[in-house]
Amino acid sequence: MRRCLMSESEAAQASARVMTRCDQLAAISETPEALTRVYLSPEHLRANRQVAAWMEAAGMRVWQDSVGNICGRYEGLQPDAPALLLGSHLDTVRNAGRYDGMLGVLTAIETVQWLHQHQQRLPLAIEIVGFGDEEGTRFGITLLGSRGLTGSWPDHWLAQTDGNSITVAEAMADAGLNAAQIADAERPLASIKAYLELHIEQGPVLEQQALALGVVTAINGARRLNCQFIGHAGHAGTVPMTHRQDALAAAAEWMVAIEQHTPRYGRDLVATVGTLQCLPGAVNVIPGEVRLTLDVRGPEEASLAALVAELLEQADAIAQRRGLQFAAEEYYRIAATPCDAQLQAAISDAVTQVQGRTISLPSGAGHDAIAIAERWPVGMLFVRCAGGISHHPAEAVAASDVAQAIQAYLQVVCDVAAQGQETR
Amino acid sequence: MRRCLMSESEAAQASARVMTRCDQLAAISETPEALTRVYLSPEHLRANRQVAAWMEAAGMRVWQDSVGNICGRYEGLQPDAPALLLGSHLDTVRNAGRYDGMLGVLTAIETVQWLHQHQQRLPLAIEIVGFGDEEGTRFGITLLGSRGLTGSWPDHWLAQTDGNSITVAEAMADAGLNAAQIADAERPLASIKAYLELHIEQGPVLEQQALALGVVTAINGARRLNCQFIGHAGHAGTVPMTHRQDALAAAAEWMVAIEQHTPRYGRDLVATVGTLQCLPGAVNVIPGEVRLTLDVRGPEEASLAALVAELLEQADAIAQRRGLQFAAEEYYRIAATPCDAQLQAAISDAVTQVQGRTISLPSGAGHDAIAIAERWPVGMLFVRCAGGISHHPAEAVAASDVAQAIQAYLQVVCDVAAQGQETR
Repeated sequence: MRRCLMSESEAAQASARVMTRCDQLAAISETPEALTRVYLSPEHLRANRQVAAWMEAAGMRVWQDSVGNICGRYEGLQPDAPALLLGSHLDTVRNAGRYDGMLGVLTAIETVQWLHQHQQRLPLAIEIVGFGDEEGTRFGITLLGSRGLTGSWPDHWLAQTDGNSITVAEAMADAGLNAAQIADAERPLASIKAYLELHIEQGPVLEQQALALGVVTAINGARRLNCQFIGHAGHAGTVPMTHRQDALAAAAEWMVAIEQHTPRYGRDLVATVGTLQCLPGAVNVIPGEVRLTLDVRGPEEASLAALVAELLEQADAIAQRRGLQFAAEEYYRIAATPCDAQLQAAISDAVTQVQGRTISLPSGAGHDAIAIAERWPVGMLFVRCAGGISHHPAEAVAASDVAQAIQAYLQVVCDVAAQGQETR
Repeated sequence: MRRCLMSESEAAQASARVMTRCDQLAAISETPEALTRVYLSPEHLRANRQVAAWMEAAGMRVWQDSVGNICGRYEGLQPDAPALLLGSHLDTVRNAGRYDGMLGVLTAIETVQWLHQHQQRLPLAIEIVGFGDEEGTRFGITLLGSRGLTGSWPDHWLAQTDGNSITVAEAMADAGLNAAQIADAERPLASIKAYLELHIEQGPVLEQQALALGVVTAINGARRLNCQFIGHAGHAGTVPMTHRQDALAAAAEWMVAIEQHTPRYGRDLVATVGTLQCLPGAVNVIPGEVRLTLDVRGPEEASLAALVAELLEQADAIAQRRGLQFAAEEYYRIAATPCDAQLQAAISDAVTQVQGRTISLPSGAGHDAIAIAERWPVGMLFVRCAGGISHHPAEAVAASDVAQAIQAYLQVVCDVAAQGQETR
């Protein structure tokens, strides 16, 4: 079980290579001054070719699948053994950071590279996928790469268009892919035992705990709602305070309530009002209408649903007491994705070994693991990022954290591959 | 003192005439479907000619002054007697109601018409002014008409432009006026004893008290501030509630405080957040910055200043506790304009006589009386308007209220003209 011990100097070298490769991938961008690399673009294909070369150098057999994911396989002790799948995504948001997604692919390659150099074969094959689209930047639909592997592309996706009215089907053809072959990307259930993903945290928890690594308990479920308070607009000078039906004042009271009630449902739940429009919107007019969005997330469906229900009750009560109307419509929902308990335990063991103690936390952001979890057990390892910043050029990780991450990742891969052969 | 008793049937006829004339003036509009009549427009000059004809029919000598106000004089017992000035404005906002301003001019004409028909002359002359610009719709500067009479046009006004880049000076020339003669509109201090203005309330107080008429105590002073909370934007899914510097949450807490604290400074003070911008403004991003406006008004300078100071202290305290920054800049200030005590008493007497009891209230909106008060004592009589609505096509007054208003107005004119001769 402890045969996969990467030395400090090996880890430092691997980390340095990953940092350099993140920089190299960041140079493959639609615009030179800001990193943007979207699905099926020329930059996507260039990044795939670059990653393929690195996979090959790590001893892997490489192919691009029918939806544009770049895939590599490192055989196990037996040919055609089921695989432990490692991965993350190679696409970016606009004006992105260089670690979100890419770090997970490049560290996975380092684990295989180490096995290859040490001529180790595991009971399971190791496969790595660099997913072509997780962010949804180009077409407004997300997880296209991972849903290729699970065979769960909805029919309407092919007709979805980008900002230039190019459909997914057309973009596939432009990239040398064939929309009629999408189903070929689907992987047989038995061919994969489990999925592991390393990702930057995109939040401040690890930094505040002064820890490089953390174990993900679940990917938070989310609800998004469009909400509206309707009162009466009026002259800001002539309507006494006691006679107002001020939609913004009602919204303010609700926002204070949201902040107060959310922590009572658990420290892992978050609720955010991210947009607010105030109508008619003049300095001397009492707001007659406010439109605002509510984004609520949590690692567990029951508490998430209970929180949303309470917040809507609060809004109704505030509106009723003030003689206003309140309406809310949920327009987006994603269920919470729990990480597999055995995989969490394996990651915890490795994290404890590497950094002395472990920490478990939910993921507030979405990941390819959400799609993969529909078919296979998933586990995730988080790496500290500076200031919790992501989706921004200031996104940063420390090379020393990446070294620890690779050590832990290799350990988890070896442990899970051994377990996977025994129990799954 | 009681020689100016207008009978019920006279008042009903006068009211019907005023209502018809309001409709006729409303037809003089830039656009047929929505009443818009701005300073120095062809419609302004047409309205002046129409009002001039009505003034002449009421026995007045009529002229248009050098800034475009339409003026009429009904001589007193002695030629060249000082005048009691009555007036309001003939310009409108865009898509306006038909009573704001016009009702004050047309009811004033009815008081003179009654004196003329009853062949009564008063110790003071009665003058009426239909001011050319109170709203500031065209050039974004207000009270141009009344500031013509007080001789207080700032030099830079002539270069002010409208939406078509036409300056005030050019617009004056287009309207047959001469910018070099603006000073001719200024009235000698001794030529006017006092100013009275009748206006719709533009608020809901009289309606809620079930009263047609009210006495204005003061025109509220106002402060307008641009305010800003600066926190840190962040991922709505990954930053725990306890680690946020949410600018919108801070603003919400402040808005609740504004609503709670304002009434403690007096029932006549009002504070309004009328605009709010939330940045970056995405459903899944914690707001890093909020820009909002604060409009505070009150009839008395000391309490107004104290309220603004407390609200800013509250904002600072909220920002500090949350680790945010708060900034505020006052960009508009108008001092409170108290109405003359003797004029208030005279209006109160007449209102009591007409409707059985009196009520005093501040004006939340601005009026020509603000400018006139810089040189002469001012008094104002408010008339109930439906739902407190103004600056909107739905603006409405009841003909029966207008009848009472004309009865009271005539009474006040006669009383003040008698007093004015005695005491001023």
